[in-house]
Amino acid sequence: MSALEQELRSSQEHSAGGMPARKPPAQASQAQSVEARLLRRLLKILGDPPIAFVLWTGERVANATEELLGSVRIADRSTLLRLLRDTRVRFGDAYSEGRIEIEGDLVGMLEAVYRSGTRNGAGSGALHRLATLWHRPRANSVARSRDNIHHHYDIGNEFYKLWLGKTMAYTCAYYPTPAASLDEAQTAKMDHVCRKLRLRPGESVVEAGCGWGALGLHMARHYGAKVRAFNISHEQIVFARERARAEGLAAQVEYVEDDYRNISGRYDAFVSVGMLEHVGIENYTRLGGVIRRALGSDGRGLIHTIGRNRPALLHPWIERRIFPGACPPALSEMMQVFEPWDFSILDVENLRLHYAKTLTHWLALYETASEHIRRMFDERFVRMWRLYLAGSIAGFTTGTMQLFQVVFAPRENNDIPLTRAHLYP
Amino acid sequence: MSALEQELRSSQEHSAGGMPARKPPAQASQAQSVEARLLRRLLKILGDPPIAFVLWTGERVANATEELLGSVRIADRSTLLRLLRDTRVRFGDAYSEGRIEIEGDLVGMLEAVYRSGTRNGAGSGALHRLATLWHRPRANSVARSRDNIHHHYDIGNEFYKLWLGKTMAYTCAYYPTPAASLDEAQTAKMDHVCRKLRLRPGESVVEAGCGWGALGLHMARHYGAKVRAFNISHEQIVFARERARAEGLAAQVEYVEDDYRNISGRYDAFVSVGMLEHVGIENYTRLGGVIRRALGSDGRGLIHTIGRNRPALLHPWIERRIFPGACPPALSEMMQVFEPWDFSILDVENLRLHYAKTLTHWLALYETASEHIRRMFDERFVRMWRLYLAGSIAGFTTGTMQLFQVVFAPRENNDIPLTRAHLYP
Repeated sequence: MSALEQELRSSQEHSAGGMPARKPPAQASQAQSVEARLLRRLLKILGDPPIAFVLWTGERVANATEELLGSVRIADRSTLLRLLRDTRVRFGDAYSEGRIEIEGDLVGMLEAVYRSGTRNGAGSGALHRLATLWHRPRANSVARSRDNIHHHYDIGNEFYKLWLGKTMAYTCAYYPTPAASLDEAQTAKMDHVCRKLRLRPGESVVEAGCGWGALGLHMARHYGAKVRAFNISHEQIVFARERARAEGLAAQVEYVEDDYRNISGRYDAFVSVGMLEHVGIENYTRLGGVIRRALGSDGRGLIHTIGRNRPALLHPWIERRIFPGACPPALSEMMQVFEPWDFSILDVENLRLHYAKTLTHWLALYETASEHIRRMFDERFVRMWRLYLAGSIAGFTTGTMQLFQVVFAPRENNDIPLTRAHLYP
Repeated sequence: MSALEQELRSSQEHSAGGMPARKPPAQASQAQSVEARLLRRLLKILGDPPIAFVLWTGERVANATEELLGSVRIADRSTLLRLLRDTRVRFGDAYSEGRIEIEGDLVGMLEAVYRSGTRNGAGSGALHRLATLWHRPRANSVARSRDNIHHHYDIGNEFYKLWLGKTMAYTCAYYPTPAASLDEAQTAKMDHVCRKLRLRPGESVVEAGCGWGALGLHMARHYGAKVRAFNISHEQIVFARERARAEGLAAQVEYVEDDYRNISGRYDAFVSVGMLEHVGIENYTRLGGVIRRALGSDGRGLIHTIGRNRPALLHPWIERRIFPGACPPALSEMMQVFEPWDFSILDVENLRLHYAKTLTHWLALYETASEHIRRMFDERFVRMWRLYLAGSIAGFTTGTMQLFQVVFAPRENNDIPLTRAHLYP
């Protein structure tokens, strides 16, 4: 029996007088049905965010004394029952299927839920721990990694072109000023990464997880680097190779369709932007060994990854429907990449507010293209990805998710800058 | 039987033909005595640094093919035997007692030993793990912390005045340019800390472990902050209070002679520079709870501490003779302060090369004052502290030790700067 089914039962017992008597809140008397009482329990479990639930009967449930941000309209009884059974996964599914409609600001409402949930300990309590027992991310063996990556990144380059901007960088951008555009911020991110690595002309770089290849091209064109970039997404590799040819950089940037575990050779720098989320914590020490071999006792590296304040699984709906196998690490977990190999951590920067801005830009482009996307896929897909993008914004604005850029070097390397002033020219 | 006694025995067996035959190095035939053969074993365990050992008989042992950096002269047989039994502790003791003399650059030779040791895995191998089994840092209960801190910091303010510079800051300075003086760099460090905390006039700060009080006074004078600073070193508190009175800042900076565990009240910022090394990893989560109570869901904090690339104990001689109870953490360990309380790590900067420069400045002032210090204490004390300062330089230049400044904030706090450009005006 799930924790929420228990809630459901205890709610029924409550209505039968089986629970210790508690003074019902003021609005309780207005909502009489069993369904409304169950919804009230759900709202309580969510930490009483300032949101109304509206039933298919028109009944409204809203415990909050604050001004309401909007309402969640539930289409029918079976949707409600599924929601009560497994809120975290079923909410996303019901929204995608149009059996839940949101009235009001989607991002703002998700932020309110994230904030209330953590305030009331819902995110860290027994309920959450129970939920995570039933849900583990898919493993990341070499073969399974390929499946997991295919699920997300091989949906079609045409789809991603619609909302990622010109760079096709599908990772957190860097906004030197709040007014920077998406493309400016993505370019600034690549410069920020290259400066942190202190790339010099003629140096060699190995990149693990290169997306559609923008960073490698940027390093070659603007820093004179020679880049070998690994990726197991076939669609991305094909795109990146074509891009390198078109830009006349194919001799400087080699795209390799292979797993990071098969990186060989020695390089001046290692870089990985947005791959660690997919590596799986059980593989971190192995990744660190790959990096150590690639750098020897010189060189330096940078890993850019979504992270957490403390060990926690990805939201189960995101992990199931969007990013199978993904798990953003807490810094303590991330250290399993570095500590066994005696790397020195030189610099960690948290860019979570930059990711909220990046996602806001993506979501706006996504909404503009939503008709196009509906024709490419279907309404369910459009709604699913909208929820994923909006939920991610809320994750970063509420501090539920972090974005870490970690610069490191082998212990022996003293060729490191005295200060970080060179990053801010 | 210690690992080194085993070495000693196996060395004897070797000379009796009990070990598998190995071709002796070229110089072996020049050193005939049993003592010389034992020393050769020791040199090998140390990873063959380019250093000669010279016996009281005049015999020289040097395996290295590189140019020698200097020599270690051993006064008598009993010193040698102690050295073989427990090199890491006995070397320091014998040097302090004048039974070991160094000819050549002390820092350079220590660096060579650190580098060779790690290259050959001596610092991470079974031998090291065995050694650490016998040696655990002294615990840090409230009462024991007081003893441990008294041991080091209550030696006498007059002593520290001789070599810490005007600020009396006894922690890593920050050199905006390589040519900065010690006093300039200590002041720049305080500004760097205040900028990282983005201190604003009228804000309240709680400081855990305030040394002789320089940072609190700097925050009050230059940033208009109101500071409560905790310290369990009686001598330091007396000094700091007098300083605050003399500088007319006693109303803005309160020095409290108490343990960090007894911090109460709410503050805009938490700061701790050079205390975490003394807290003990077993108390980190408790410290995090103290900080969480002090900040609530707003505010921000900074911890500045010596650290390691991976979990490891402090050098046992330093822990026994200089800093009882001290243990610099790896970042994974340090996260035990933050993760249980859902703090977001915003910024980590590694300043290890700055600590090497700071210590170099301290050592130069220390040598200038050595006659004075000899009169205050004795020759043994002068040598012991010289070795500690020189060894610390080598620790930071070889990457054996790190210096982390970690900026953090409660998860809910979105009042954080978008970039770090404000640190580099």
